[in-house]
Amino acid sequence: MNILLINPNTSVEVTEKLSNAAMRVKSSDTNLICETARYGVPYISTRSEALIGGTAMMEILAEKHDEIDAAIIAAFGDPGLGAARELFDVPVVGLAEAGMLTACMLGGRFSIVSFSETLRPWYLECVAWHRLEARCASVRTLTGGFQSIGNVQEEKEDLLVALAQAAIDEDDADVIVLAGAPLAGLAQKVRGRIPVPVVDCAEAAMAQAETLVRLNVRPPIEGSFRRPVAKPTVGMSSALAQRIAGTR
Amino acid sequence: MNILLINPNTSVEVTEKLSNAAMRVKSSDTNLICETARYGVPYISTRSEALIGGTAMMEILAEKHDEIDAAIIAAFGDPGLGAARELFDVPVVGLAEAGMLTACMLGGRFSIVSFSETLRPWYLECVAWHRLEARCASVRTLTGGFQSIGNVQEEKEDLLVALAQAAIDEDDADVIVLAGAPLAGLAQKVRGRIPVPVVDCAEAAMAQAETLVRLNVRPPIEGSFRRPVAKPTVGMSSALAQRIAGTR
Amino acid sequence: MNILLINPNTSVEVTEKLSNAAMRVKSSDTNLICETARYGVPYISTRSEALIGGTAMMEILAEKHDEIDAAIIAAFGDPGLGAARELFDVPVVGLAEAGMLTACMLGGRFSIVSFSETLRPWYLECVAWHRLEARCASVRTLTGGFQSIGNVQEEKEDLLVALAQAAIDEDDADVIVLAGAPLAGLAQKVRGRIPVPVVDCAEAAMAQAETLVRLNVRPPIEGSFRRPVAKPTVGMSSALAQRIAGTR
Amino acid sequence: MNILLINPNTSVEVTEKLSNAAMRVKSSDTNLICETARYGVPYISTRSEALIGGTAMMEILAEKHDEIDAAIIAAFGDPGLGAARELFDVPVVGLAEAGMLTACMLGGRFSIVSFSETLRPWYLECVAWHRLEARCASVRTLTGGFQSIGNVQEEKEDLLVALAQAAIDEDDADVIVLAGAPLAGLAQKVRGRIPVPVVDCAEAAMAQAETLVRLNVRPPIEGSFRRPVAKPTVGMSSALAQRIAGTR
Amino acid sequence: MNILLINPNTSVEVTEKLSNAAMRVKSSDTNLICETARYGVPYISTRSEALIGGTAMMEILAEKHDEIDAAIIAAFGDPGLGAARELFDVPVVGLAEAGMLTACMLGGRFSIVSFSETLRPWYLECVAWHRLEARCASVRTLTGGFQSIGNVQEEKEDLLVALAQAAIDEDDADVIVLAGAPLAGLAQKVRGRIPVPVVDCAEAAMAQAETLVRLNVRPPIEGSFRRPVAKPTVGMSSALAQRIAGTR
Amino acid sequence: MNILLINPNTSVEVTEKLSNAAMRVKSSDTNLICETARYGVPYISTRSEALIGGTAMMEILAEKHDEIDAAIIAAFGDPGLGAARELFDVPVVGLAEAGMLTACMLGGRFSIVSFSETLRPWYLECVAWHRLEARCASVRTLTGGFQSIGNVQEEKEDLLVALAQAAIDEDDADVIVLAGAPLAGLAQKVRGRIPVPVVDCAEAAMAQAETLVRLNVRPPIEGSFRRPVAKPTVGMSSALAQRIAGTR
Repeated sequence: MNILLINPNTSVEVTEKLSNAAMRVKSSDTNLICETARYGVPYISTRSEALIGGTAMMEILAEKHDEIDAAIIAAFGDPGLGAARELFDVPVVGLAEAGMLTACMLGGRFSIVSFSETLRPWYLECVAWHRLEARCASVRTLTGGFQSIGNVQEEKEDLLVALAQAAIDEDDADVIVLAGAPLAGLAQKVRGRIPVPVVDCAEAAMAQAETLVRLNVRPPIEGSFRRPVAKPTVGMSSALAQRIAGTR
Repeated sequence: MNILLINPNTSVEVTEKLSNAAMRVKSSDTNLICETARYGVPYISTRSEALIGGTAMMEILAEKHDEIDAAIIAAFGDPGLGAARELFDVPVVGLAEAGMLTACMLGGRFSIVSFSETLRPWYLECVAWHRLEARCASVRTLTGGFQSIGNVQEEKEDLLVALAQAAIDEDDADVIVLAGAPLAGLAQKVRGRIPVPVVDCAEAAMAQAETLVRLNVRPPIEGSFRRPVAKPTVGMSSALAQRIAGTR
Repeated sequence: MNILLINPNTSVEVTEKLSNAAMRVKSSDTNLICETARYGVPYISTRSEALIGGTAMMEILAEKHDEIDAAIIAAFGDPGLGAARELFDVPVVGLAEAGMLTACMLGGRFSIVSFSETLRPWYLECVAWHRLEARCASVRTLTGGFQSIGNVQEEKEDLLVALAQAAIDEDDADVIVLAGAPLAGLAQKVRGRIPVPVVDCAEAAMAQAETLVRLNVRPPIEGSFRRPVAKPTVGMSSALAQRIAGTR
Repeated sequence: MNILLINPNTSVEVTEKLSNAAMRVKSSDTNLICETARYGVPYISTRSEALIGGTAMMEILAEKHDEIDAAIIAAFGDPGLGAARELFDVPVVGLAEAGMLTACMLGGRFSIVSFSETLRPWYLECVAWHRLEARCASVRTLTGGFQSIGNVQEEKEDLLVALAQAAIDEDDADVIVLAGAPLAGLAQKVRGRIPVPVVDCAEAAMAQAETLVRLNVRPPIEGSFRRPVAKPTVGMSSALAQRIAGTR
Repeated sequence: MNILLINPNTSVEVTEKLSNAAMRVKSSDTNLICETARYGVPYISTRSEALIGGTAMMEILAEKHDEIDAAIIAAFGDPGLGAARELFDVPVVGLAEAGMLTACMLGGRFSIVSFSETLRPWYLECVAWHRLEARCASVRTLTGGFQSIGNVQEEKEDLLVALAQAAIDEDDADVIVLAGAPLAGLAQKVRGRIPVPVVDCAEAAMAQAETLVRLNVRPPIEGSFRRPVAKPTVGMSSALAQRIAGTR
Repeated sequence: MNILLINPNTSVEVTEKLSNAAMRVKSSDTNLICETARYGVPYISTRSEALIGGTAMMEILAEKHDEIDAAIIAAFGDPGLGAARELFDVPVVGLAEAGMLTACMLGGRFSIVSFSETLRPWYLECVAWHRLEARCASVRTLTGGFQSIGNVQEEKEDLLVALAQAAIDEDDADVIVLAGAPLAGLAQKVRGRIPVPVVDCAEAAMAQAETLVRLNVRPPIEGSFRRPVAKPTVGMSSALAQRIAGTR
């Protein structure tokens, strides 16, 4: 099967980390294709950046959707997930969604742990959108800046382990979800230092995308995620506009 | 004061209806400026269309924010509201937000009544985002198509009145919120035929935008709606990119 | 338009503060009438005091309702709000309600900040009655006594600013609602020292009362806030009894 | 032990029904004292009537509290319950509270069944105040008028049985709570015709009042139901004012 | 009336404590019968131990149900309560259920206070099963081991009083529920040192079991707690199997 | 990897159906081992039957846990899931859990559709235990009996398709979860007749069990699902007792 991983951030270094993590868990007969957003910001942290990243992701998906079996939106806040799920026929899974739902099978409540406090409001809205607040013990983020998005996971490894421990001790977390595309791959390194299960969202998303393909579900033609009625657009020239207009 | 009303739909006819309704309730010394989305779809009904409309709205706001005292996002699902609220210093109010919060002062639970069933999933997500589900008795929409977005309120007037009555009778609605930008102005016409208070969202948004200006609040420099840290962007050329980059 | 502000506390000093704050934001053509409860306690802090204050408020409203366009119940816990809203035809808005709903347009979650810990349980019940708990980050109150209700806002100004900051830092508040009729007018003074929007409830209530009048809604004749069926009363001689009996 | 049952309605016929039901379940060594509100309406149905009934109840309790071991507020919406619980040292239980909490031990969700649709909004607020919404399957009320409050239970017996059955069939009720002081005593008559447990609120309140006395709890001197700090009052001459002022 | 108290723990010392507490509050004409689980663990702390204790309790109830008027499941997490309530015709009340519902009549929110941190996850699930989370301020447990289950209440008395105070001070508890069968009887000893009402669950369960008998309710033949349809069993030889098969 | 599927029902026919469905989606290098409960009822429908089935499942898991990589509890209500998850080191996933969490990636809200109304209360408790109520549109079950558990899916196929359609039309379901071990394998047959994605729980559980193994998580040594402290048991002779006592 062909799985398309779309990084809504513009940073290619982050795409590589996501790809490496996804490769570790994929089945041998799965073909992983990775794409990076062509416009936007290096890494999305807030609602306004996510709005733009969501559009960038949709344009890539509009171009590729008929060549793939499933897609992964590879930023933790799942920018544009609802939009993608309604507009395209292939299964689409979000990084946050996959990480959180997988964590639900490993304990009662998970804590989301990440590297920058600017991410927290957006992540909290993501948890709420998925209606998983009763399963979320906390969203904990480091304070202070970092040197580069490409190696923030190495720079902050010890602090993130300590933050995970605080979530366990103070927030009653049963599971830790390491959140944020730049942390893809970190879970395998720190697992031995965190006394509860740790979920890597890129790994989880890869496994869940395969699950959705294996289950062989059909796209909805009724319900709230059925494809919208075709509409004319103005001022848009991309594949996305064609998809909305029903011509792609 | 100067209030900017941005219609995230591309239909100019709808902008006119919104403008007329807002004019009816504005204070004499308020200057209302209206803008229409330059790209997207004639009227937004779904998550994917709202994503695009939200971006279109943000670009307009990026261009005009320093000439105004407050802004109205004039589509019922409030596309991009969180993004706009964090990125700009002026108060921003959404059509749905204003309609629902105003309705809260007129009864215990409101029903949202609109003209097309395609709107319902998006509206429900909007209610959830605002965390007003406990105040929302139902979201009711007509089934069947309509002739043109520009006069759907005339075409469907009787059916909408009947739908409002059903919400009162069957869903325990204390207040009716007529939802959807194309219905702006309808409340005044049908008020006498609906036995509970009826809220026109464009009127409510106008009044609430003025309220926020009169209260003279300062923009947050802390909290989850503080302005994001400036970031470089790639592939974007608009005023919005400059705002994100901290140069506008 | 004529707006009646009823202070359910017996303290005339507090009525003056409320009046001053409301005057600051009212439209030029609005006529503000203020009344003070004729019996009860100087300032309501608890459920039992609110029960009495609610009755005192209702008697004033029964006497004046046909001379006004809207009414404000000017104590933060909104004593008797539901009762007033069902029994009279004019729009009625509560101080807490107006403050909280206005705060909802300025951020995700607000903290209620007040001067006396005795107020907290009643305020929490008020938030719950309005079903706004998901929007309320915390209710924070000062400990310790105060010299006089008439100048508690001056005496406690610095402590209240610090308490607001604690709510922002520790409770994730996006907005501060300064609560309690004796704090009316304080927001304008301290706004510069608090890094998020600050809402003055008396100002908000004034603006919202005008909004409800401008929207020109009709009183409900169905729904849970329709006027109750007339009933005989015994042992009561006030205008309130006449209103209940359907003769006023 | 001495238990005081206060009927916040002015109807003596209703007090008799309440007394009879309570007598059926009381322990042999319990002395039941019954009082009827001296002012207000014959039977409370709405928020405004409950506000007045709550005050009337408080005045009686202020006069009698030092002669009793516990009190029952004998109207289903529990008017003034929070106020009474904070102001007096004896345990106080509400008719609705006792009925609902007792029902919780007989199944998962209860339905509240009563005789007049005017009661429904107030009952729903009562359920919410007790935070028992997740246990409440529905509030169902008959439509149409009735001949007299004194024999409404005889007049409507068959309709109430049918309504209970509808709640079981359509709302998944596990238990029926017959609600409203005028229905006191009905449960014993109709139990054989309703296929789930049926709770009589007056019986439940009697048993629960005894339970609270038997448990020998002390009144709180901390927490949100501690007695309020004494305050001066103006314009009040009753025992209630003395209690508030700390002199009774 | 005959009340059967079943201790799902195998510790006879704990059964004695439960019996003594229940005896203190029972009516003079009530006959209390106590049984101890024949297999399982000395005291249940976790989900897996509760699963076994629930089965042990069900076997005792299957043997005795036709000799009694009501039953008490005397471990705080109420192991097997739903199962017992559906399978047998007599009213059944759980220790936690009785303690929590009784606490609801003494204040707004209760804190559950117990002696071992291993109990906390199970207790939290118990609160959730009863859907009383909105009434539960916290579940607080001591850390560290204890000498013997038979006198843990004496050993930890001072620490438990301090823990209760912390729940009042920091969690806004209005009532303390002393939880865990081994703490039966402690409330009477420590009541004077805790400034809010304290509930002893064994006392509460005794009183509530009597209440359910006094109310004379019938067992459900509809609703979710009706007796299940008889089914054949394999591999089981106990009275419980006969009850399931409809032959006892 | 070795995956153990435990059918808590005693019916071997059902185990076969579960096995067939799981085989369809498993990876080529996964070894599936199936076990059937040795005591209990042919198919679990209620709380009391689930209590027994949970114990039967735990005994099998106690015997086999050190030979496997993950386990599936193959009855929809997930009997004993929390107990198994805390007591054993291997990942354990429930049939309902896997079905519901997988459904969450295919739409906003799922409906659970099953063949017997006796299952509904237990299924609702299962949804609540997983705290997925906000994602569950409804639990719908057929009324009326069936001929044999072994071919109920063939007998009821058309009725189940119609019931799924009703859930879509009337409950706003975006996804259908076909629930109950006896329906394993049905989804593939009826998918073409249901206009939204349909989840087969046995397939989902197989895929999710593999996912948990692939993620290579460690068992918790802290948090609420850490292994309980070893305890002596009495009256038990199984491997389960040894596991509790820490000797297996």
